[in-house]
Amino acid sequence: MDSRSSDILWGRNAVREALRGRRKVHRLWVASGAQGEAIVRELEDVATSGGRNTTLPLVSRVEEVELEELAGSLDHQGVAAGVSPYPYEDAAVILQEADLVLALDRVQDPQNLGAVVRTAEEARAAVVIPRHRAAEVTPAVVRASAGASEHARVSRVRNLADFLSDAKRTGFWVYGAEADATTTYTDPDYADKTILVVGSEGTGLGERVRKECDLLISIPLRGRMGSLNVSVAAGILLFEAVRQRDVREARGAGGPSPGGP
Amino acid sequence: MDSRSSDILWGRNAVREALRGRRKVHRLWVASGAQGEAIVRELEDVATSGGRNTTLPLVSRVEEVELEELAGSLDHQGVAAGVSPYPYEDAAVILQEADLVLALDRVQDPQNLGAVVRTAEEARAAVVIPRHRAAEVTPAVVRASAGASEHARVSRVRNLADFLSDAKRTGFWVYGAEADATTTYTDPDYADKTILVVGSEGTGLGERVRKECDLLISIPLRGRMGSLNVSVAAGILLFEAVRQRDVREARGAGGPSPGGP
Repeated sequence: MDSRSSDILWGRNAVREALRGRRKVHRLWVASGAQGEAIVRELEDVATSGGRNTTLPLVSRVEEVELEELAGSLDHQGVAAGVSPYPYEDAAVILQEADLVLALDRVQDPQNLGAVVRTAEEARAAVVIPRHRAAEVTPAVVRASAGASEHARVSRVRNLADFLSDAKRTGFWVYGAEADATTTYTDPDYADKTILVVGSEGTGLGERVRKECDLLISIPLRGRMGSLNVSVAAGILLFEAVRQRDVREARGAGGPSPGGP
Repeated sequence: MDSRSSDILWGRNAVREALRGRRKVHRLWVASGAQGEAIVRELEDVATSGGRNTTLPLVSRVEEVELEELAGSLDHQGVAAGVSPYPYEDAAVILQEADLVLALDRVQDPQNLGAVVRTAEEARAAVVIPRHRAAEVTPAVVRASAGASEHARVSRVRNLADFLSDAKRTGFWVYGAEADATTTYTDPDYADKTILVVGSEGTGLGERVRKECDLLISIPLRGRMGSLNVSVAAGILLFEAVRQRDVREARGAGGPSPGGP
């Protein structure tokens, strides 16, 4: 799936969660001195308490400037890790196993992708991104997700519209977020298998993606700007689906509703 | 209120919204060349169509490197503006006029403050921040808010716990977000005048602030990390209040509910 044999992650959350997560961690580099000591103790605790690893991989003490070079960033917080490539999931597996999915159409900003992945993980939603003209799960995205990417389910697909078409055939309802949609996002019933599609900040949903949506929904905005950050919009939509499902569960109506939109 | 006589804003959204907003715009600097021409045309449209200004202030053409120096950032997008200081509102006025307020306890990251301000503006909520040990509305915050700060109501208070105490006396209910609160955020009725308090990512709410809350609430998280970005959490809480009020309005029950939490 990926030609690179490894990534270099950086930042304390990113490295800690990689140790707790699914990737192979080959190597650690930590800042020499007191800061490095504290980091190594923290990571040892992680490695030996419930993590998948039982010991730390090879740890090298390096100078700040070497960490900056390894990370390609000033934002390393004293630690970097060499890890196997990001474990994207097969979209077919997501369609079989997930019941809440967030699809991102043309979101190119790594900060936004990271924030969305972090939020989706807390809503127990899988994330689907296109393989082209979109951010992928780079080390900067891992950092922006505060390491949540290491536990999240993320799939890359060749074409998002085709994926949505497949999803509908396997029983998903597809809701696309558009600023001028007349249906408020709180109106649909998200009890069934649900895909929420959110587009880029600049251009919204692509034409083919829009056409694959069963229903277009909007968050009613009352401000002068008329737009939200994509990760905030995704959070509001995802946790509305979670809220509805929790309400349903509390009422004991457990199963899926008879109809969709 | 502020010893600086002016700020320098940068970025297209920031400068455009400043022209539409409440500050005095003294001066504009734009990149020389084609990019600058396009920016000036866009800003002229803004200035002459419904903005508070009817003509652009003095425009100077400058080289990229001068813009970088003016902005103190590489992220200027070809434009900077000299503007009067940020127009913070008096907390007493907010307590009189607002019915939804987001209070931020010790949020220090300008990106997070900017994202929160943007979200609050779209929920028509005022924002209250402490004067010390917290981010204020700097040009970087304006940029991170995509310019929404120029329309948002933001107040700085000397002490957040004292402000909450005052607010309760004027009829507000105060809800503090805490990860381990047993009350889910969807349970309270936010029909009355409501303050939502969100703390910093690292340390949550301060002790005195927590004590001033009528009720502590949490967003039920299902992920491995157990936390959300502060702007995403604020968005979920604010739009739950908006949702409840919209439902109430649609039912024709207009007025405030008889009780609080």
